[in-house]
Amino acid sequence: VHTVDLELEAIEKGGFDHFMLKEIFEQPKSISDCLRGRIHPEEAWIKLGGLRDYIGKLANSKRIVFVACGTSWHAGLVGEYLFEELARINVEVEYASEFRYRNPIIREGDIVIAISQSGETADTLAALELAKSKGAIILGVCNVVGSSIARVTHAGVYTHAGPEIGVASTKAFTAQVSVLSLMAIATAHQKGTITEDTFRRLLWELQEMPKKVEMILQKADEIKDISKLFTFASNFIFLGRGLNFPVALEGALKLKEISYIHAEGYPAAEMKHGPIALIDEDMPVVFIATRDSSYEKVVSNIQEVKARKGRVIAIVSAGETEVQKMVDFTIEIPNTHEMLQPLLSVIPLQLLSYYIAVLRGRNVDQPRNLAKSVTVE
Amino acid sequence: VHTVDLELEAIEKGGFDHFMLKEIFEQPKSISDCLRGRIHPEEAWIKLGGLRDYIGKLANSKRIVFVACGTSWHAGLVGEYLFEELARINVEVEYASEFRYRNPIIREGDIVIAISQSGETADTLAALELAKSKGAIILGVCNVVGSSIARVTHAGVYTHAGPEIGVASTKAFTAQVSVLSLMAIATAHQKGTITEDTFRRLLWELQEMPKKVEMILQKADEIKDISKLFTFASNFIFLGRGLNFPVALEGALKLKEISYIHAEGYPAAEMKHGPIALIDEDMPVVFIATRDSSYEKVVSNIQEVKARKGRVIAIVSAGETEVQKMVDFTIEIPNTHEMLQPLLSVIPLQLLSYYIAVLRGRNVDQPRNLAKSVTVE
Repeated sequence: VHTVDLELEAIEKGGFDHFMLKEIFEQPKSISDCLRGRIHPEEAWIKLGGLRDYIGKLANSKRIVFVACGTSWHAGLVGEYLFEELARINVEVEYASEFRYRNPIIREGDIVIAISQSGETADTLAALELAKSKGAIILGVCNVVGSSIARVTHAGVYTHAGPEIGVASTKAFTAQVSVLSLMAIATAHQKGTITEDTFRRLLWELQEMPKKVEMILQKADEIKDISKLFTFASNFIFLGRGLNFPVALEGALKLKEISYIHAEGYPAAEMKHGPIALIDEDMPVVFIATRDSSYEKVVSNIQEVKARKGRVIAIVSAGETEVQKMVDFTIEIPNTHEMLQPLLSVIPLQLLSYYIAVLRGRNVDQPRNLAKSVTVE
Repeated sequence: VHTVDLELEAIEKGGFDHFMLKEIFEQPKSISDCLRGRIHPEEAWIKLGGLRDYIGKLANSKRIVFVACGTSWHAGLVGEYLFEELARINVEVEYASEFRYRNPIIREGDIVIAISQSGETADTLAALELAKSKGAIILGVCNVVGSSIARVTHAGVYTHAGPEIGVASTKAFTAQVSVLSLMAIATAHQKGTITEDTFRRLLWELQEMPKKVEMILQKADEIKDISKLFTFASNFIFLGRGLNFPVALEGALKLKEISYIHAEGYPAAEMKHGPIALIDEDMPVVFIATRDSSYEKVVSNIQEVKARKGRVIAIVSAGETEVQKMVDFTIEIPNTHEMLQPLLSVIPLQLLSYYIAVLRGRNVDQPRNLAKSVTVE
């Protein structure tokens, strides 16, 4: 029986060494599944069936609160930038565990959105129920159909990423960010805070996303080679600004979870207020330095780290030449609309963590101490 | 001339080995200076001269935004809990560097409060000017009288902590938290969201604070002994919940800044969503486990860490016995009102960082790569 189980598992892994790697490589498909039937760039529409009656309420809301834990909390931070910038709505992102014990202030018209892959995260579920009892509209972004969070919410959007087996979330994260992008774009369009032109451009860029993710995945061997040089690093820092700040947090969390390397994410400009004291020749620093509105600032942060002899890996936009001259390694990713950048910039970070963890001989799919869904408080 | 300079410095250090230690020990006085003339528990009043015309505006505001960097940002997070819990006003805490590049949404009646020891922090100043240009009321919490931030704001409160020379901020932090406590209590009192009884109790507890801080400082040798056992740790995790979550972040930042140990703070409940993978017998974990509303939850988080063989130092309330049985070391601190706990729980963390850094032979007052005030972007 044991042999059959193992064979079954091998089949389920579809030729990949680990579920995590399989799931990383499934992202062109999972993002595509997530978008299917929901956008039409040529006809210029978004349809989110589950939110039919709620896009208007989102557009009218004065305040949105995301509640989530772990990787989903990082997706929420991306959502904050999306809703604030595109739809001009104030957003707060709360750790579900903090929110629920804090007697949170909920006012009429406030919308609380839970994000959870499993839809069973205990703290998130409790936070939602608290918000509901205080009269908030509660929405859900879940992957598992019919899960507890999906059932308790007034409405929601499924991420349709398919089952995720690896404990470290990858395709669920990009599907969450895809859904939050759709929600923010739909809300902004309804509210009139983006032009018709921007609306169409965002839809086109979303449509192109699976292809662009595929282009990054083709660089897996290049990323594997870089990871070999960092196998024995005992610490890592990940830095980004704007929408790439949550991506830096997520990159650090992946590395923590599966390689047990102490990695930490920071908004790049905060470095000078303390963490830069950690930088020396033993400290690898990953920068997300794509060509967006904070590019120049990030470049100057890179210079500060290089001046202190930190070893730098930079995620850069295709065609980048300036950063290449400064840093130890660059990984190019395709260009896209700045608001959608996280969907691409996170991919090389997932691969980097994966390869480092494998080289360290870790049990990638079932890292020590961790459970796939945290259904206890 | 050089000899005279050195002697002068020795005199300025007042018998302490470092400015940082002197400033840690000055906290009973600096907190007392900060409160002087501003509260009267018997007559039950708070006076914040600089905010005379603004307490009403704070009480009526729907939303407060703190902008700050580094340690001041942590003070802002404490302020968030204070204003939300006591005055029932929604608060957001923004990294100044992120806020200013983000086209922030400011509405009529929004109040933006900058926190900065020097009053010259470039990103914070720029964030304030942006908020002002969008019509916000802008207030300041600064230490240096007549500083740029003090001049640009509509009104504000000085922390009166006296000059801070050590690059790692200590007494400025507790003075900032004292001022934010005063502001939140005054606003809550005006708004009627706390009872007269709670108001008086908070004032009494504030009044007692210098004495209680002194009681913790008397444990310096005990903390020094503990620090000897962690001199060669290469990583540290700091955990707390509620108001002690920002204190955990601040404890981690101190250790980073002056000992160059990679330390990270987390809300305790987030551990299970990734960081717990880091825990083994080589990972020291500092818990803030005082007797407050999240005590039971924190105790269960401690058990999780001990089950994975992490070495635990716990900051506990006077008289604690349960936690003592579970962990490697405890440091007792006096009891106070839950809302004022950060003023006490941060003190042992400052001392712990200081002694570890000294034992590692670091230049405590001028850690590498860091400047006292970050006046560049």
